[in-house]
Amino acid sequence: MTRFAFTVEFDGRPFMGWQRQAHGPTVQQAIEDAIHAVTGETVTLHAAGRTDAGVHGLAMRAHGDIAKDMTPFRLMEALNAHLRPAPVAILHCTVMPDDWHARFSCTGRSYVYRITNRRAPLTFEKGLVWQVSQHLDTDAMHEAAQLLVGKHDFTTFRSAHCQSASAVKTLSALDVVRDSEQVAIHARARSFLHHQVRSMVGCLALVGMKRWSVADMGDALEAADRSRLGLNAPPDGLYFVAAEYR
Amino acid sequence: MTRFAFTVEFDGRPFMGWQRQAHGPTVQQAIEDAIHAVTGETVTLHAAGRTDAGVHGLAMRAHGDIAKDMTPFRLMEALNAHLRPAPVAILHCTVMPDDWHARFSCTGRSYVYRITNRRAPLTFEKGLVWQVSQHLDTDAMHEAAQLLVGKHDFTTFRSAHCQSASAVKTLSALDVVRDSEQVAIHARARSFLHHQVRSMVGCLALVGMKRWSVADMGDALEAADRSRLGLNAPPDGLYFVAAEYR
Repeated sequence: MTRFAFTVEFDGRPFMGWQRQAHGPTVQQAIEDAIHAVTGETVTLHAAGRTDAGVHGLAMRAHGDIAKDMTPFRLMEALNAHLRPAPVAILHCTVMPDDWHARFSCTGRSYVYRITNRRAPLTFEKGLVWQVSQHLDTDAMHEAAQLLVGKHDFTTFRSAHCQSASAVKTLSALDVVRDSEQVAIHARARSFLHHQVRSMVGCLALVGMKRWSVADMGDALEAADRSRLGLNAPPDGLYFVAAEYR
Repeated sequence: MTRFAFTVEFDGRPFMGWQRQAHGPTVQQAIEDAIHAVTGETVTLHAAGRTDAGVHGLAMRAHGDIAKDMTPFRLMEALNAHLRPAPVAILHCTVMPDDWHARFSCTGRSYVYRITNRRAPLTFEKGLVWQVSQHLDTDAMHEAAQLLVGKHDFTTFRSAHCQSASAVKTLSALDVVRDSEQVAIHARARSFLHHQVRSMVGCLALVGMKRWSVADMGDALEAADRSRLGLNAPPDGLYFVAAEYR
């Protein structure tokens, strides 16, 4: 058996998320099916993160153990051929030691959340960004974001379905950057709670719209109470950007 | 009658191009139909440029004369509501003097042609870029592009269906810029021949692939012979960027 690590780009629009499900197409299933078509083997993929329905991946990392003797390049080419026309592409494929694990060896994860801040309807970006018509004060959003950076109990920003043992996480960075009508929120941490990025972004948007003050964000965090969540942003704008390994 | 000028963004994938046609949806028709729905008037739009099937617009300029008394803002909002779900958005709407003409007053047009230079299949960008798998030498492409800048007979780079009176045009700028796997070719001129940008890009790609030398580009231009065209790039990567008015 050889442990192959994959870097995967995917457009989340047609998928029920990363993880294999009984009902509906997922990215994991698409790749596992392609591996089966290429090798005849039934392989279970392990990924650095799980993404919800409609969430995208720029460089998701995953691994699978394959018996068939193939170079990483040939495997990647064959998988990409079988993945068409699904919007999933293997960008890189490498052989890793057997004790390397895409999920458990991962020491950092980063996401970007993209907002298009304009009144005019979306054309190219439907399903790829969150459109917010009301002007966002991104300076206030960035200021409020800094209250979330560090080690906190993120219960307020956690989905009811979150399976993490603890709600205490360390957020390494949360930066709000505007480039004309495009607003990007960059988040980085060792790991995130389920819905944490979307929940933080939703509340940041309330700050940007002046419906919350910067202090309201601090109060919501300190409350450690899910009923204090102001808004959960839609999946459309969320991208898994990168996984770090030391 | 009031002359309204529109700035239009559109995803060209579902359209047969800008200009109204008997068969198939066009951007012009979508907007004219929306104007009819809002005002009850049959208005003919005039645009700064005509784009082919599958070509996109970031800020096409167009005008139409409308009798109904509306503010530009209300007209824009109503048109955008009626344009849904077509991927066409009116970004700006202003009132212009009666002697202002989106096409005839236009003194400069710019396009960008986007190439994704990688082996992995496209995900987010299907239909929005030209994918070139073979590595492109963008320095050589930029060098070859400079041979095309200036006043020349562009017969080699002209469609057989081109209706322009003369093939002599002045190309103001043609810049090839790489950002990682993304290659952008920026073209600016007072006006272009039909297929000129796609034809120049196709030949630049041949230079980038080392199938043409830089000197081959100069020879093809000097020949002023359409049979010397090396390659016409697909519409997918072409965007009308802006129209200038003095």
